[in-house]
Amino acid sequence: MIGSLSEEEFLQKVLAFHGHAAPGVLLGGFLVEAARAHMKEGCLFDIISETRQCLPDAVQILTPCTVGNGWLVVQDLSLYSLVMYDKHTGEGCRAWVDPAKLGNFPLTYEWFYKLKAKKEQDGEALRREILDHGFEMISTRPVQMKPEALGHKSKGAIVTCPTCGEAYPVKFGDTCPLCREGRSYRYC
Amino acid sequence: MIGSLSEEEFLQKVLAFHGHAAPGVLLGGFLVEAARAHMKEGCLFDIISETRQCLPDAVQILTPCTVGNGWLVVQDLSLYSLVMYDKHTGEGCRAWVDPAKLGNFPLTYEWFYKLKAKKEQDGEALRREILDHGFEMISTRPVQMKPEALGHKSKGAIVTCPTCGEAYPVKFGDTCPLCREGRSYRYC
Repeated sequence: MIGSLSEEEFLQKVLAFHGHAAPGVLLGGFLVEAARAHMKEGCLFDIISETRQCLPDAVQILTPCTVGNGWLVVQDLSLYSLVMYDKHTGEGCRAWVDPAKLGNFPLTYEWFYKLKAKKEQDGEALRREILDHGFEMISTRPVQMKPEALGHKSKGAIVTCPTCGEAYPVKFGDTCPLCREGRSYRYC
Repeated sequence: MIGSLSEEEFLQKVLAFHGHAAPGVLLGGFLVEAARAHMKEGCLFDIISETRQCLPDAVQILTPCTVGNGWLVVQDLSLYSLVMYDKHTGEGCRAWVDPAKLGNFPLTYEWFYKLKAKKEQDGEALRREILDHGFEMISTRPVQMKPEALGHKSKGAIVTCPTCGEAYPVKFGDTCPLCREGRSYRYC
């Protein structure tokens, strides 16, 4: 079981949403449930994903938290970890893939540390190892969010950019962030 | 129709994923489809969402692009716009909510510029206005991604942080990003 889902149900949701049964999403599912096990029943929680790779999709598949509804924030530190916390009290749990626990799981270790080219990995066996032992690869600890990290941050007043005519929060200054950054920063 | 979905199907998917029929997700659906109309049939595309509010969920509901699979990148400029582009050629389309086109849509204008408190808005009428006229509120233009913005960026080699024992990409330096930033940056 991954939370309330059978393995088969979880895999189907991963395929439908993420597009393929990526080892990172599978392991991410165990991170979500390892953290959730420490939350009070019925608590409304927010989540920080400390990587933008794979893990945000496990969160979006298994919880009501999405990037667009703001209950999931991606703080990309390139760490395979997440923080789940009560959005009112800030009490919660951090869960991470613990390298010290990967010794007995060679396929996961090789994949996690990128020691083998993808085409040399046995993907099926790797997924099996994660699905059978995901919880054993994870450590957790309690966290307390700082008061300034809680609550809704308002965008403030919205105005029209005098340069491009698009709408933006006035707190960014006299022009919109894209005009300030140079509108051709990544495309022209 | 929103892409291949009926209005009812789209609304059901929005409720299931985002949690409520937020005007921003509805309008976001029209941004997605306005851009997609300019893409070649069958082309594999990536998307940049230029806000993290609501719009990423419209993308994740209507396309194969998710935050976790990397085909959706959130570049939070606080602009209600997206860029959709062919991941091989970089040709694509930018779509944005155009304030110059909102004059005939007073409920959307008031909501978009936050001129009325939420409890004074007529949410049902606002959603109706967006669902009936979403495409008329949007402008698009062709874009060409810069070569450096295309292709997969590798994380490079993964090592174990000597301070905390977690795994991180060595390109970040001698310790992991969280130890460098101070592990109590948002929680303790």
